[in-house]
Amino acid sequence: MISYFSEESSAEAVIGRMSKDVNPRLAEVMICLIKHLHAFAKKTRLTQEEWEYGIDFLTKTGQICSAERQEFILLSDTLGFSMLVDAINNCRPQGATENTVFGPFHVAGAPVRQMGDNINLDGRGESCLFEGRVIDLDGNPIQGAFVDVWSDNAEGFYDVQQPDIQPKWNNRGVFVTGANGVYRFTGIIPVSYPIPNDGPVGQMLGHLGRHPYRPAHMHYLVTADGYQKLVTHIFVGNDPYIESDAVFGVKETLIAPFEPICEGPTLWRAPFDFVLAKN
Amino acid sequence: MISYFSEESSAEAVIGRMSKDVNPRLAEVMICLIKHLHAFAKKTRLTQEEWEYGIDFLTKTGQICSAERQEFILLSDTLGFSMLVDAINNCRPQGATENTVFGPFHVAGAPVRQMGDNINLDGRGESCLFEGRVIDLDGNPIQGAFVDVWSDNAEGFYDVQQPDIQPKWNNRGVFVTGANGVYRFTGIIPVSYPIPNDGPVGQMLGHLGRHPYRPAHMHYLVTADGYQKLVTHIFVGNDPYIESDAVFGVKETLIAPFEPICEGPTLWRAPFDFVLAKN
Repeated sequence: MISYFSEESSAEAVIGRMSKDVNPRLAEVMICLIKHLHAFAKKTRLTQEEWEYGIDFLTKTGQICSAERQEFILLSDTLGFSMLVDAINNCRPQGATENTVFGPFHVAGAPVRQMGDNINLDGRGESCLFEGRVIDLDGNPIQGAFVDVWSDNAEGFYDVQQPDIQPKWNNRGVFVTGANGVYRFTGIIPVSYPIPNDGPVGQMLGHLGRHPYRPAHMHYLVTADGYQKLVTHIFVGNDPYIESDAVFGVKETLIAPFEPICEGPTLWRAPFDFVLAKN
Repeated sequence: MISYFSEESSAEAVIGRMSKDVNPRLAEVMICLIKHLHAFAKKTRLTQEEWEYGIDFLTKTGQICSAERQEFILLSDTLGFSMLVDAINNCRPQGATENTVFGPFHVAGAPVRQMGDNINLDGRGESCLFEGRVIDLDGNPIQGAFVDVWSDNAEGFYDVQQPDIQPKWNNRGVFVTGANGVYRFTGIIPVSYPIPNDGPVGQMLGHLGRHPYRPAHMHYLVTADGYQKLVTHIFVGNDPYIESDAVFGVKETLIAPFEPICEGPTLWRAPFDFVLAKN
């Protein structure tokens, strides 16, 4: 007796078509995906018109992607899926600094700068001193840690979003810690900015009554031999979007103090220690 | 107390961001989608590398789409999602002819032909008489029904897949029933063919150990005033792929007899009645 497709057994029909010698992990992921996809359609009683809308949405999302734009990552980010995958894969011991989304604006190969250097090369924005230590869970300094940092400019754009504007590597740099684990550099207080919202994901946010803004943050990628890679931000706590980050990146432990100071032209200071967990 | 993102409450965090005045049906669909997406990632403990693979797969699927190719529909078809949506939306009373997938190869505006005409214009393939009646659930003939038919050619291609090859409208036509509800035309016995498999979906099928073939079938779109639109095929029962249609379109009730006859050049006869349900 041949068993053909029916609503009742739809997922089983598709799963049953896989060959027996498929990679076991691929089979596990696909079985779970197929079950959830089918359950979604059944639970919502998805209409033909809604299906067509979905096909069209996915197609447009793929077609707007380019070397400079990744709309599917944006979709994943705005549905909280990127942060969820990060949470699943980066569960750290109590006390270690938490991860958050990597984002699309990191550029490998930023210049290694001298400790204390200013990464803000265009002179616009409110000057801020970022400093602290890279330490282990026992509080011991980590020597030779790479602290790779990047932020938007005073207008809310990363340098890669404005490739025609000089200087290059504005608001980016890599710092290497010494024996005391200290890092220190001057940048600007980052500002909140909208994620690219002139495409399908922006439309989706509009339909859902959501704004496209991310609260102001400085990005950090901290790596050191023997320790887990840390991909994180520090956030400006009084940002109007701190409770509604469009990509759900905010964690309470990542909100840094931004304290007013006045040392020469520097108006602010953001102290923050990064605590790395061993591999 | 602000509640930030965590694995435990990830779906609620995203759902909670929707505004209160969102279209209720959009909210219902998105809430269900977000819950299933997040449950899928948690259940599989999706890795960062798998997430990246998925983003890349979706991006490539969108980018191969063109005016002539719809890879996301192909993805939906091969995951049984299209057939499921069809099943959800076209539950018919016992006795009415069942729907199956519409497929990407229908062309609106095919020529209306005289009852009994031959739609096979290139003279290749084994000639077959297709005939039967369009009737209601009580067996009464339906007059004025439009029977729009299309099939592949003897090499397994639809005319739209070979736009440079004449004649146009090969293996297509529209027939209008008279008072007796009868339709009749000559075509060729359709042949099984692979769905386009040189893209991401073809790769996926390969990884899953699945072939890309559809069993041979003739497409029908039957419409009549006052009756539900019927989108279906009839299948050649002894096709080697009848139990493993790549898009899960086969239903037992849609397997037609293809009987050998020998009336002039015609070698086969496929009798089939289409039973329409009222609106």
